[in-house]
Amino acid sequence: MTAVIAIHGGAGTLTRGALSADREKDYLDALDHVLQGGQAILEQGGSALDAVTEAVFRLEECPLFNAGKGAVFTEQGGHELDAAIMDGRTLAAGAVACVKSLRNPVLAARAVMDDGRHVLLVGDGAEAFAKSAGLELVSADYYFTAERYAQWLRSQANGSTDLLDHDAQAMQHEAAPIDAESKLGTVGAVALDRHGNLAAATSTGGLTGKRAGRVGDSPLIGAGCYANNRTVAVSCTGSGEMFIRSLAAYDVSALVEYRQLPLDEACRIVVMEKLPMIDGRGGLIAVDAQGNVCLPFNTEGMYRGQARAGGPRRTAIYREENRRAN
Amino acid sequence: MTAVIAIHGGAGTLTRGALSADREKDYLDALDHVLQGGQAILEQGGSALDAVTEAVFRLEECPLFNAGKGAVFTEQGGHELDAAIMDGRTLAAGAVACVKSLRNPVLAARAVMDDGRHVLLVGDGAEAFAKSAGLELVSADYYFTAERYAQWLRSQANGSTDLLDHDAQAMQHEAAPIDAESKLGTVGAVALDRHGNLAAATSTGGLTGKRAGRVGDSPLIGAGCYANNRTVAVSCTGSGEMFIRSLAAYDVSALVEYRQLPLDEACRIVVMEKLPMIDGRGGLIAVDAQGNVCLPFNTEGMYRGQARAGGPRRTAIYREENRRAN
Repeated sequence: MTAVIAIHGGAGTLTRGALSADREKDYLDALDHVLQGGQAILEQGGSALDAVTEAVFRLEECPLFNAGKGAVFTEQGGHELDAAIMDGRTLAAGAVACVKSLRNPVLAARAVMDDGRHVLLVGDGAEAFAKSAGLELVSADYYFTAERYAQWLRSQANGSTDLLDHDAQAMQHEAAPIDAESKLGTVGAVALDRHGNLAAATSTGGLTGKRAGRVGDSPLIGAGCYANNRTVAVSCTGSGEMFIRSLAAYDVSALVEYRQLPLDEACRIVVMEKLPMIDGRGGLIAVDAQGNVCLPFNTEGMYRGQARAGGPRRTAIYREENRRAN
Repeated sequence: MTAVIAIHGGAGTLTRGALSADREKDYLDALDHVLQGGQAILEQGGSALDAVTEAVFRLEECPLFNAGKGAVFTEQGGHELDAAIMDGRTLAAGAVACVKSLRNPVLAARAVMDDGRHVLLVGDGAEAFAKSAGLELVSADYYFTAERYAQWLRSQANGSTDLLDHDAQAMQHEAAPIDAESKLGTVGAVALDRHGNLAAATSTGGLTGKRAGRVGDSPLIGAGCYANNRTVAVSCTGSGEMFIRSLAAYDVSALVEYRQLPLDEACRIVVMEKLPMIDGRGGLIAVDAQGNVCLPFNTEGMYRGQARAGGPRRTAIYREENRRAN
């Protein structure tokens, strides 16, 4: 069994206008650093659970992605973060939603899972639990980045919750390879370890300009995150409401288990057929119990990467696969 | 197509000790009144969505059940309520969780769905949205019932979160047919209308003594509530964390869709095989697109009822089916 990890940093439409090669390199470098952390754990014989925790922790620490530092602003100008983790060996799961002062929501999700009493804690209760578990609290300005703030200012100025028609010119100086305002930012990781255990983790700052209290698919088991040693580990990113209504992550597992489909066909049905039927946009990353990896998306791009223990780390943004190998 | 509705008021172990026939009659009468409301809507040609909304509204208004008035107390002695609703015709869904001042969480879930912008709102944000939608806010003492308060006092006195080993003697004067401290209280309804549309709704006060911020399966689409015209409508009640990890409601749908199983076989696999594998206790109510109804549970009892348009209303508590018909 060759251990393997895959990660994503969100999906969406491509930024309009010219993009510098430097800016693109920033994202690929960041993805490579994240992969490296998970890959090293797997190479040392660590668990899939520890590998996805480390990868999502690094994604939360990186301001380029919409999770932890760099999270988007809510309608009211605050931050509300969500995360989930699931252990395919035991089907144990933990999640937090609508937290405002946790540096690393994925570590809180892991603590909820390890505690075992509940699966999902939200709001102040989740923060109190995380604090009692010894996790780091931060003030709201920790999450601040100039780029996300500019996004929020534009959403306020537009007086609209639909940010897709932003002024491309206004973004030129800060453009990211994938349009930062296409609203599909989430991060996640899935892994298979050498013992055959699967795990998945997902974390997000949600939608720019979202209503206070809105929770998307990321922290919901079976919607944005699912793992089961008998089938697959899945982490999603996209228009969260449609992923909730589709049970996108669990649906991949159900297609593999009940219809005996190969991983890529199960992923294709969910991402290319079922989600589009309800206007669901985005993608997912999946690894199955045999170590197959599939990273489908129905948008123009998805920040992503994959690496096997002892193998090259591959990162990509646009449709072409395996854009860069380190 | 004969329209049909089914309801539940929670599952669990039976109360130890002698029970008066009067007390049992209180519960059957309450279930009958709830069924009557949903059945009347279906008989008048109303939608499955309106029928389940009315039934769950009535269950929330009734202090005998753990939802709305009569909700259990949290660890801190407060109330936190959750609800969800789903329209099988469009796969639209709405839910609220961890709300503390809404008289009828199911109406808030319905408002979230009708609004269409998000699927799940939690905490203060959910309450602000419900208020703006014109829904009734109440103070915490609205939910109070002497019986739930006595339960909470005992849970505090026990210094334990495990309430299964309560003192049977202490409960004698207030015993309910199903042990009020067996922790599986939830209410729900599923319906098929004459136009072939399915809908499901679920509402709960959660677990007695639950940690602040804990959200169970009830408000989570695919876990405690799911509806899809192509397959089934399902509402669950039980040990919420295990229903989340199992995606119990969606799993019934997936077994029907992907393995082409009849409804009763799909329900049996989820309730009698898959949930017990992770110590999941409880039950569910399901109706499929052909109007078949299945009300399985793996506990000693489940408050439940079913009625077809123009037919008798059947209510039951223990294992024997169709205990009473009105």
